[in-house]
Amino acid sequence: MNDSSIQWVYSFGAKGSDGDSSMRNLLGGKGANLAEMSGIGLPVPPGFTISTEVCTRYYDNGRTYPETLGGQVADAVARIEAETGARFADPQNPLLVSVRSGARASMPGMMDTVLNLGLNDETVEGLARRADDKRFAYDSYRRFIQMYADVVMEVDHGLFEDELEELKLRHGVFDDTGLTGDHLETLVATYKTIVEEEAGRPFPQDPHDQLWGAIGAVFNSWMNARATTYRRLNNIPASWGTAVNVQAMVFGNMGDDCATGVAFTRDPSTGENSFYGEYLINAQGEDVVAGIRTPLPLTAAARANGGGDELSMEEAMPDVFGQLDKVRAQLETHYTDMQDLEFTVQKGKLYMLQTRSGKRTAAAALRMAVEMAEEGLISRDEALLRIDPIALDQLLHPTLDPDAPKTVITQGLPASPGAAAGEIVLTADKAEEMAANGHQVILVRLETSPEDIHGMHAAAGILTARGGMTSHAAVVARGMGRACVSGAGEVRFDEVNNKVFVRDQELSEGDTITIDGGTGEVFLGRVDTIQPEMSGAFSTIMEWADDIRRMAVRTNAETPADARTAVGFGAEGIGLCRTEHMFFDVDRIISMREMIMAVDSEGREAALAKLLPMQRQDFEELFTIMAGLPVTIRLLDPPLHEFLPHSAEELADVAAAAGISPETARQRSLKLSESNPMLGHRGCRLAVTYPEICRMQARAIFEAATAIAGRGAEAPVPEVMIPLAATAKELELCKAVIDSEAEAVMAETGVRIEYLVGTMVELPRAAVCADDLARQAEFFSFGTNDLTQTALGISRDDAGAFMHAYTDAEIYPTDPFVSIDRDGVGALVRMGAEKGRATRDGLKLGVCGEHGGDPASIAFFEEVGLDYVSCSPYRVPAARLAAAQAAIRQRG
Amino acid sequence: MNDSSIQWVYSFGAKGSDGDSSMRNLLGGKGANLAEMSGIGLPVPPGFTISTEVCTRYYDNGRTYPETLGGQVADAVARIEAETGARFADPQNPLLVSVRSGARASMPGMMDTVLNLGLNDETVEGLARRADDKRFAYDSYRRFIQMYADVVMEVDHGLFEDELEELKLRHGVFDDTGLTGDHLETLVATYKTIVEEEAGRPFPQDPHDQLWGAIGAVFNSWMNARATTYRRLNNIPASWGTAVNVQAMVFGNMGDDCATGVAFTRDPSTGENSFYGEYLINAQGEDVVAGIRTPLPLTAAARANGGGDELSMEEAMPDVFGQLDKVRAQLETHYTDMQDLEFTVQKGKLYMLQTRSGKRTAAAALRMAVEMAEEGLISRDEALLRIDPIALDQLLHPTLDPDAPKTVITQGLPASPGAAAGEIVLTADKAEEMAANGHQVILVRLETSPEDIHGMHAAAGILTARGGMTSHAAVVARGMGRACVSGAGEVRFDEVNNKVFVRDQELSEGDTITIDGGTGEVFLGRVDTIQPEMSGAFSTIMEWADDIRRMAVRTNAETPADARTAVGFGAEGIGLCRTEHMFFDVDRIISMREMIMAVDSEGREAALAKLLPMQRQDFEELFTIMAGLPVTIRLLDPPLHEFLPHSAEELADVAAAAGISPETARQRSLKLSESNPMLGHRGCRLAVTYPEICRMQARAIFEAATAIAGRGAEAPVPEVMIPLAATAKELELCKAVIDSEAEAVMAETGVRIEYLVGTMVELPRAAVCADDLARQAEFFSFGTNDLTQTALGISRDDAGAFMHAYTDAEIYPTDPFVSIDRDGVGALVRMGAEKGRATRDGLKLGVCGEHGGDPASIAFFEEVGLDYVSCSPYRVPAARLAAAQAAIRQRG
Repeated sequence: MNDSSIQWVYSFGAKGSDGDSSMRNLLGGKGANLAEMSGIGLPVPPGFTISTEVCTRYYDNGRTYPETLGGQVADAVARIEAETGARFADPQNPLLVSVRSGARASMPGMMDTVLNLGLNDETVEGLARRADDKRFAYDSYRRFIQMYADVVMEVDHGLFEDELEELKLRHGVFDDTGLTGDHLETLVATYKTIVEEEAGRPFPQDPHDQLWGAIGAVFNSWMNARATTYRRLNNIPASWGTAVNVQAMVFGNMGDDCATGVAFTRDPSTGENSFYGEYLINAQGEDVVAGIRTPLPLTAAARANGGGDELSMEEAMPDVFGQLDKVRAQLETHYTDMQDLEFTVQKGKLYMLQTRSGKRTAAAALRMAVEMAEEGLISRDEALLRIDPIALDQLLHPTLDPDAPKTVITQGLPASPGAAAGEIVLTADKAEEMAANGHQVILVRLETSPEDIHGMHAAAGILTARGGMTSHAAVVARGMGRACVSGAGEVRFDEVNNKVFVRDQELSEGDTITIDGGTGEVFLGRVDTIQPEMSGAFSTIMEWADDIRRMAVRTNAETPADARTAVGFGAEGIGLCRTEHMFFDVDRIISMREMIMAVDSEGREAALAKLLPMQRQDFEELFTIMAGLPVTIRLLDPPLHEFLPHSAEELADVAAAAGISPETARQRSLKLSESNPMLGHRGCRLAVTYPEICRMQARAIFEAATAIAGRGAEAPVPEVMIPLAATAKELELCKAVIDSEAEAVMAETGVRIEYLVGTMVELPRAAVCADDLARQAEFFSFGTNDLTQTALGISRDDAGAFMHAYTDAEIYPTDPFVSIDRDGVGALVRMGAEKGRATRDGLKLGVCGEHGGDPASIAFFEEVGLDYVSCSPYRVPAARLAAAQAAIRQRG
Repeated sequence: MNDSSIQWVYSFGAKGSDGDSSMRNLLGGKGANLAEMSGIGLPVPPGFTISTEVCTRYYDNGRTYPETLGGQVADAVARIEAETGARFADPQNPLLVSVRSGARASMPGMMDTVLNLGLNDETVEGLARRADDKRFAYDSYRRFIQMYADVVMEVDHGLFEDELEELKLRHGVFDDTGLTGDHLETLVATYKTIVEEEAGRPFPQDPHDQLWGAIGAVFNSWMNARATTYRRLNNIPASWGTAVNVQAMVFGNMGDDCATGVAFTRDPSTGENSFYGEYLINAQGEDVVAGIRTPLPLTAAARANGGGDELSMEEAMPDVFGQLDKVRAQLETHYTDMQDLEFTVQKGKLYMLQTRSGKRTAAAALRMAVEMAEEGLISRDEALLRIDPIALDQLLHPTLDPDAPKTVITQGLPASPGAAAGEIVLTADKAEEMAANGHQVILVRLETSPEDIHGMHAAAGILTARGGMTSHAAVVARGMGRACVSGAGEVRFDEVNNKVFVRDQELSEGDTITIDGGTGEVFLGRVDTIQPEMSGAFSTIMEWADDIRRMAVRTNAETPADARTAVGFGAEGIGLCRTEHMFFDVDRIISMREMIMAVDSEGREAALAKLLPMQRQDFEELFTIMAGLPVTIRLLDPPLHEFLPHSAEELADVAAAAGISPETARQRSLKLSESNPMLGHRGCRLAVTYPEICRMQARAIFEAATAIAGRGAEAPVPEVMIPLAATAKELELCKAVIDSEAEAVMAETGVRIEYLVGTMVELPRAAVCADDLARQAEFFSFGTNDLTQTALGISRDDAGAFMHAYTDAEIYPTDPFVSIDRDGVGALVRMGAEKGRATRDGLKLGVCGEHGGDPASIAFFEEVGLDYVSCSPYRVPAARLAAAQAAIRQRG
C-alpha cells in the first residue's frame, strides 16, 4: 500500500463513525470506544482519532509525520465544525477541542492531555459572549494556557500556580471560584508573559498551531519516563504506540446545571451489581480524576451509606441521572462487561466522553464474572477468561484480625482492599530504596501522581490525604493489588522534618502503621492479621476452572507448613521438593558440613549416616500431608560450597567440628569455590561423583514411604527426580543407585511401594537428547529456570545489570525469567516433550520453577501438552485458573 | 542368540584360523593378526584367542565367565596339542604356552603377560630332557614362577629378584648366565617357598589351574590403574575390553642358534624404506622389549652406521634373516602398511609372534604415506587417511639451532625426535607436580615402566640410562610426540640426594638440560632452538590435502606474529580476532580501565577516544598481513570486570588514573563482579548497553580498512562479528550501529569497501532461533566452546572437579571441550546451520574455538557442511589435513 492511500485519521460523531470497538489496536482504547459509542447512538461530542500507526511511524522516521496526515486532519476538523456549527478561530462561535492520548491498553494518567484548545485572545471573548459568562471563559483560557505551556512548551506549571495563589491572596479569596472574570483576565495576561519569558516565544494564538503542538506533545509523551516505567511494570511493548483523540469540548463547568463525573456500571471494589460513581457540579472532568476536589456520590443509596450531606446526582439532577442510568444498562449489555464511564453534563445535556472495561479488584472480578454468568450475560468460559489469575493473589493474603487490639488513628476512603502494615515513608524514591533493603513500607502522600508509580509498586500499601475512590492513588493501587486508603483528610505533612501529623499523633518516617483498604481505617503500629476466607464466588470459579482444565496443578514445597497451605489451595501433589532446603537447619548444617569436609567416601558416609534419620523424618511428614498424592523429590542440587560459611571465624568452627585444621578447611572451601557455580559441580554431578549422597537420600525416601505404607496409611507415590542431567548415562548411573536402595529397603521392611525415577530437564542438551534420556527417565519435569539461564546464557543473579535495557529495547518482550521465552526456551521444552514421548509413550511431563505459576507460561505449557504445572503454594489458585483459561483457549 | 551357541574362543594354527585381521574388535589386534598370519601361511606357533566379548561379559556379570567358555577353551587346547604333539602336564613332551592380553587398540605394556605356562615340578624335567639343557628348563621354570606369582598371585616380584641377586653373589657370578641348572633348581625351590609364604597357598602344579589363573589375571588387568590411565590419555573406552591370547611357546633362549627380536618393515623414526629392528641371540622376547639387555641391530647396514662391534642378524644368521626379510615384504604388501613385527628363532627355525601396524613419528608417517602412494602400494586418499593430523604438531615445533653454543654432556639413542629443554626431575610424580606448576621438565630415569606414563605425559622430554630404540620409553615417547633419548648409559643415579651424575658432571633436580631426540645428544643448560623446515613429504601431503578438502581453514589470531605464523602454515584468513586481547597492553589497559570506571556515556566516550587510534593501528597491521583474505573481528566479549586489577593497591592506581576515590573504584569493581561471569554482562550485551564501545570498534575497523584500500593496497573483507547474541533484535541493534559507522567512515574517506556483519552462534537459543537470527546476520561462526558450556551446563573453568569421573564413567566418550559432543552440541550446530541457511541461502558458516582444530570435530563439521574451520596457528596444518580426511570419508 502506498502511504498516500493510508487512512491515518478516523472521525466519529452523530453522523456515524469510521471506526468501532474492534479497532482498539489501531485507534487505542479510548478512540475505539468513542467511535463505538457514537455508532450505537450515544451522545458523544464529535471528534477524530489519529491512529497508533502514526505514532509508530513518527518514531520510526525520526519524529516526523506521514505526508498525507496534514490533509486528513484538516478534513476531520472540518467534519467537527460541520456537526457543531463552531469553527476554529471563529470569534463568534469558536470551536474548542480536547487533545488526549489513548493507547491500546489503559495507562491511567501516564500521558499528557490538553483541554480547551482553540482559545486565544479573540475567541475567549466569543466564548464569554456565547456562555454569557466572562469568568468561565477566562477560567477556561487560563487553564488552557497552563496545561498547554506545561505539556507542549515545557514551562514549569508551578510558576502558574504561584501566580494563581498570589492573585487569590491579593484579592483575599480562598477558593478559585472567588476570583472574577476580570481577575482572571489579568491572570491570563500574566500567564502569557510567563510563557514568553520561560519558553522564549509567545503563546501561540493560531488554533491550528495549537492543535499540532498538542498532537506532537501526545506522541512525545509516549516515550517519557513515566510512560516507559508504566509499560515496563505492565509488560506493554513500546511498539504499540498511542493514538491521539481530538474531540469537541463540552463543559461541565458552565454553571450549576453543569456537572462532570466518572462511574462504574458495577461496584469495582466488591463487584456488587449497583451503579457506582462520583460527580462534581460545575467542574471539569480532570477535577474528579485528579482528586483535587472530593467528589459526591452518584446515587442516593451511596449517599445514604456514606452519610454525606450534599445531594447525590440522582437527587440533584434526576432527569440526567435517569439518562445516564439507561446508558449504563445499554453499555453493559453491549460490551457484556463492567464499564468505567466518563461523562459531562453541559447545561442539562448529557455527553459521554469515555467508556472502557473497568479495572476492578480481584474480589470484584470474581463476583462479577460469576454473577454475569449466572445472569446469562456471558458464558462460564467467558467468566473464567475475565479473571486475571495473578490478581487472585490479593484474595489469599491475610486481612486484619477482628479480635486483635487496634488503635485507629484516622479514617479515609476504602480505596483498594487488603490490609498492609509497614514503615511510613513520604516519597516514592524512599519507598523504593527501603523496599529494596527488605523493609515493608506504607507510602504516605498528600495525593499521588504518575511520578509516584515506582514507589507505589515498592510499597505494601498507600495512604493519601486527598482524592476519592477514583483518584489516581485508588485506581493504580487496585490495579497493582496494593492496599490503599485515600482521602484521609486528617493527615498533615511536615516535609522539612519528614513527619506527618494525624490528629494529635506525630509520626516520623520509619514509624509503623497498618492500613485496611477494605474499611479505610488507619491504625498505629502493626495489627495482627488472619488468613482470608475464600468467598463463594472464589469457590465457584475454582470449581468451574477444575471442571475445565486438563493440566494438574502441583506445588513446590519442602516444609510441612507450605505443603499444608498448598493442599488447602487445591494442590494435587508436590512437583518439586528441594531437599537441600532441609539441610540448612542449625542442627543439620553441622553434619552437612562435616560431610563436605570429609576427604574420602568413608568420612562422607559417616556424616551422611547422621543426616539419614533427619531426612527420613522430613519425608514422613510430607508424605503424611500429601497422602495418596504424587510427591516429586529432587536429589541434592546446589554446589556443596553453598553450604559452607563465608567468614573465617565460622569456617574455623566448621573445621573444629570436622576435626581438621582451619587451614585445611580453608583450602577445602577454596577448592570447592567455583568461577561459575551455576554451571559447576552440582546437580546429578554430585550423585555421580559421590554416589553415597544419592544413596542416603534414596534410603531416606524409601524408608519413609514404606514406614507409612507399613502402618496401613495411604502410601504416597515418590517420584525421585535426578537434577541437571544432560545424558542418559548419568540417569542410568543414578537410577542404579536409587533402584538398588529401593530394593534393599523393601527387602528389609517387607513392604513394597510404587515409585518412579525421572529427571529434571533443565539443560539444552537434555531437551535436544530427550529421546535418549527417556530411555532411563520415567518422568520429565522441565526446570525452566535453569533452562532459561543456559539456553539464553543469562545468569539470573547477574541479569540485573542489563535486563531492564533488554526489556526496554524489546529484545525480550518480558523478563524471560517471569514469562517463558516461547521461541527459544519454549522451543526446547516442546522438543523435549515431543522427543521424550516419542521414546516413551505417555511419558509424564511437568514443569517446576517459577514459570509454573505464570499464566502466560501456563498457556504455553497447555499448548505443548504437559501433564501438570507446579508452583509456589500461594500461586496454586492462580495456576488452576490459568490452566482452565489455557484449556479454553486451546480448545479454540 | 542363546549364550550357549556363542563362539567365545577362536583358534589359529597351521591347519587354518577361525579368525582374520578384520575381526580386530572381537579378537583384539594381536589375536586378529596372529589368525591372519596363520591364514596366509606364515610360521606362527598354534594357539587361540578368547574374545573381547568375554571380557565385557566378565565385567558385566560380576567377574564371572560365560558357562560354555570352559568347554571351548578345552577344545582349543586340544587343537594346540594336536598340532604340536605336546600335551599339557605331559612329563615327556609338555605343552608350554604364553598367555597375553590383546585389546582392539595397542596398549604397550599396559597389561600383564605370563610365559612358559605349563611348567611344574614334573614337566620341567621333561623340558630339560627334550632340550637337553637343564639350565634352560629351570631358568624357564623360575621365570614362570616369578611372572605368575607377580601377575596372578600378587606376590611382590622384588622378593624373587632379591633371591636371584643373593644366589649370584653366593656363587660369585655377575650375570644370570653364570648360574647353572643346579643353581636354578635350588632357586626354584626357594621361589616356591616364597610363593606359599606370601600368597598363603602353594604354587599351582596343575597346568589347567595355571591357565585359568592367567586368563583371569589378564581380564583383571584391563581395569588396573595403569590401563585405566592409558585409556583415558588415549581416549580408549573401557567397554572395548581385552582379548586373551594363548599360544604355544617357542624359545629364543635355547642356545646360540636361537634368537628373538622386534622389527619394523620401514624405519619408524624417519620413514625411510629400509628394514629396521633389533635382536638378541639366546634370549626371550621380553628381554628385547623390556630394554634390560641392549639389543643388536638387525641389518649389516645398521651395524655399519651404528659402529657396533657385534654381528647383526643379517651377518650372524643369514638364512633366517633371509626368511625374515621375505616375511617383511609379504606382510607389507598384505597389510599395505608399515608393520611392527615380533619374531623368535628356535634352533634355527623362524616363528612370527606378532604383527601390527607400527607406531611411527609424524615425520615417518608423512614420508611413508607419500612414498607408499608413489610406489602404488596405496592411493593418495589412503595416504592422507594414514596420517594422524594431531601428530603433525611435532613437525612444527622448534629443533636445536645448529649454530647455538652447546655443551654435549653425553649421548644416548635417538629414540623419539624433537628437541626439548627443561628442568631435571627424577620421578614421574615430581614431573607431574612441576609441570602442573608451569615448569618445563625432562624426566630422567634409569628406565621407564608403565607406572611412569603420567610423568612422561607431563614432561617435555624423556632421558633414560637403559633400553633401546624399542624400549618402553622409546615406544611411548614416540606415541606421545615427546622427545626421547634412551640408553644413555653414562647417566648414573643418586636417588637419596636426588642427583644424577653424567661423566664428571653432577646434576641436581631443577638443573636445566636439553635433549635432542633426533640425534640422541644431551646438552647442559638450555640450547637455542630454530623453527623447523617443512620436509618435502610435508608439502606434498599438504598439497594433496588442499586438492581434496572442501572446507577452508582459517586461524584464530590477534597479533601480527600469530597472523604471520598462520599464513606461513597455510591459513586462508582469520576466523576469530578476539579484540579484547588488544586491550591488555600496559599502555592500553589504563584507558580501558578509565572507560570502565566512567559513570556515564560521556566519560566512556572520552576514554574510548584514546583507544580508537590504537585499535585502528592493530587492525591496519592485521589487514596488511591478511591482504585479500577475510578477517573476522569479534567485538568486545568478556565481562568488563576481567579488565580490572584484583589487588587493593592496583585498584587504587586505577582510581587515581580515573580521577575517582579508591572507595568509588572499589564499589564500581564490586558492582561489576558477577556470580556467574560466563553468563553475565558480556558479549553483545555490552554493545547493547554501551553502544559507544561498539561504535568505537566499528570505526577502528573501517578506518583501518579504508586506509589500506585508499593507499591502493589489497583491501581486506572485514567480517564484523557480534558475540553472544541470542536474538535477532540484539543483532539488529548492533548492526545499526556498525552500519552507520561504516557509512560515516566511507563518507569521510571517500573510499568504499565491502564488509559483512554476522554473529557468533554460541548460545543454545541462537541455534534454536537461527532462522530468525539469519535475517540479520550475514554469516554465522559457531562458538562451540561457549555452546558446549551452555548446552551441557558445564563451566569449563570448574569442570576439573568432575570431568575425569565423567569421561571415566563414559558419560562423555571424550572431554566435550576437546572433541565436540555430537549428539548434543553437534545437534545444535546442525540445527543452527540448517535453520540459518533456510532463511538465507548460502549463508557463510564457520566454526571458531578449539573444536576447529580437532580432527574428530572437523569430521563432524564436514558432515554438517560448514564453509570453514578456524583454529590456532600451529593447528592449521593439522586442520588442513583433517578437513581433507573428512572430505574423503564424507565422499565415502
